[in-house]
Amino acid sequence: MPSKPPFDNLVVVLVATRNPLNIGAVARAMSNFGVSELRIVNPYDVAFREARSAVGAAGLLKKAQKLSSVADAIADCALVVGTTAARDRKLDHPLRTLQQGAAIIRRKAGSGKVALLIGSEKRGLSNEDLSYCDWLMRIPTQPEQPSMNLGQAAAVCLYEISRQSKGVAVVEPSSPVVPGDLERITELLQEALTVSGYTRDKQNTNELRRLVRRLKPSHADSTLLLGMLRQMLWKMKQGQ
Amino acid sequence: MPSKPPFDNLVVVLVATRNPLNIGAVARAMSNFGVSELRIVNPYDVAFREARSAVGAAGLLKKAQKLSSVADAIADCALVVGTTAARDRKLDHPLRTLQQGAAIIRRKAGSGKVALLIGSEKRGLSNEDLSYCDWLMRIPTQPEQPSMNLGQAAAVCLYEISRQSKGVAVVEPSSPVVPGDLERITELLQEALTVSGYTRDKQNTNELRRLVRRLKPSHADSTLLLGMLRQMLWKMKQGQ
Repeated sequence: MPSKPPFDNLVVVLVATRNPLNIGAVARAMSNFGVSELRIVNPYDVAFREARSAVGAAGLLKKAQKLSSVADAIADCALVVGTTAARDRKLDHPLRTLQQGAAIIRRKAGSGKVALLIGSEKRGLSNEDLSYCDWLMRIPTQPEQPSMNLGQAAAVCLYEISRQSKGVAVVEPSSPVVPGDLERITELLQEALTVSGYTRDKQNTNELRRLVRRLKPSHADSTLLLGMLRQMLWKMKQGQ
Repeated sequence: MPSKPPFDNLVVVLVATRNPLNIGAVARAMSNFGVSELRIVNPYDVAFREARSAVGAAGLLKKAQKLSSVADAIADCALVVGTTAARDRKLDHPLRTLQQGAAIIRRKAGSGKVALLIGSEKRGLSNEDLSYCDWLMRIPTQPEQPSMNLGQAAAVCLYEISRQSKGVAVVEPSSPVVPGDLERITELLQEALTVSGYTRDKQNTNELRRLVRRLKPSHADSTLLLGMLRQMLWKMKQGQ
């Protein structure tokens, strides 16, 4: 699976975040998904840079810019997207699902800086914060429980924004199915079943073959199964 | 935006989670995305039910089942999916991206219970935990920073699984895989191999379980296989 390039043009802007642990958690998610620029507007707790939740993202947090207004934080951004949990809230902005919005963000980030604004834990973005936004984006959550934890919401947004448009190949275990193996297992199983008294004749070979083909063991598993069957056959013959 | 129905058949299984706050965060994300069944295997801290991080999900957390083994937690699940941050780890299992895996989970959850296994914060799922998994799924993170916060990883998985798909329903083969069958075959095979002298102890139970899960016999084939194994076992014991 090839890794995706970091998003140099995506800027995460946290506005009036109360809990430093949430700031750290956002930093961690950013580093998980290749986003490196964090801007913090008026955090409630100034000690956010020491947040222990920024596992593996201490450097990112250290170089986060601290600003005193949303205006300053988005000054160099060609697109400003606000996040909201609101479903019914009266909105002046176009509201997009995360999936729709992420596709636009990916495209726009190709040519200029894009800001993703995330508001405080309790209240989200204020009307003034929203006034800087070109449009809003929401994660499709259950209507009874729309409000997400800040760090989790950020992780979900960054996951969707960083997602590759096409699925990547499945990594299957390397061992292929070898047709000859299936026939050898069928024969040995037939012999073992005859010796055990399970079957008295060879009439059911076709059924056994179909069974083995349904199970479709890989070459590695076939080798295992053949070894097991041989040992059991040997043991059964010991008693005769 | 229409809301999606809750996923009645999806079960989140947290194994050996250390931090109760993470359990609460997972519960919160579950309620955000319409998943209600949580099972907790051997949590490090028994006070997890009071986790304050389960904002809006206290009820869900209260009725979470606490279990002492992965086997019990997945006993009624037709599909068991493990989560991993491993990119290069030597894997016996097929590894799918979250996007690919989520599509399969959505489909399978239409006809039977599906377990999503999430391991501990430090170590993820153990080899024994993994032996119960049909396949593994990973969130496509940056190679330098693959390890996510547990609550964030759960939120991202549940977001992707609950996403609306345009795909058409796929018809599954009629004879289902019954989870209990696979465990019974594993046990009987273990006994047969011990009696035959193929194995001297029970160390390889995990490997046998993985083998049986890779073969994935349907209920009808499981009945056949159990009958064959019983007969061979009887015969082997005759000679002793």
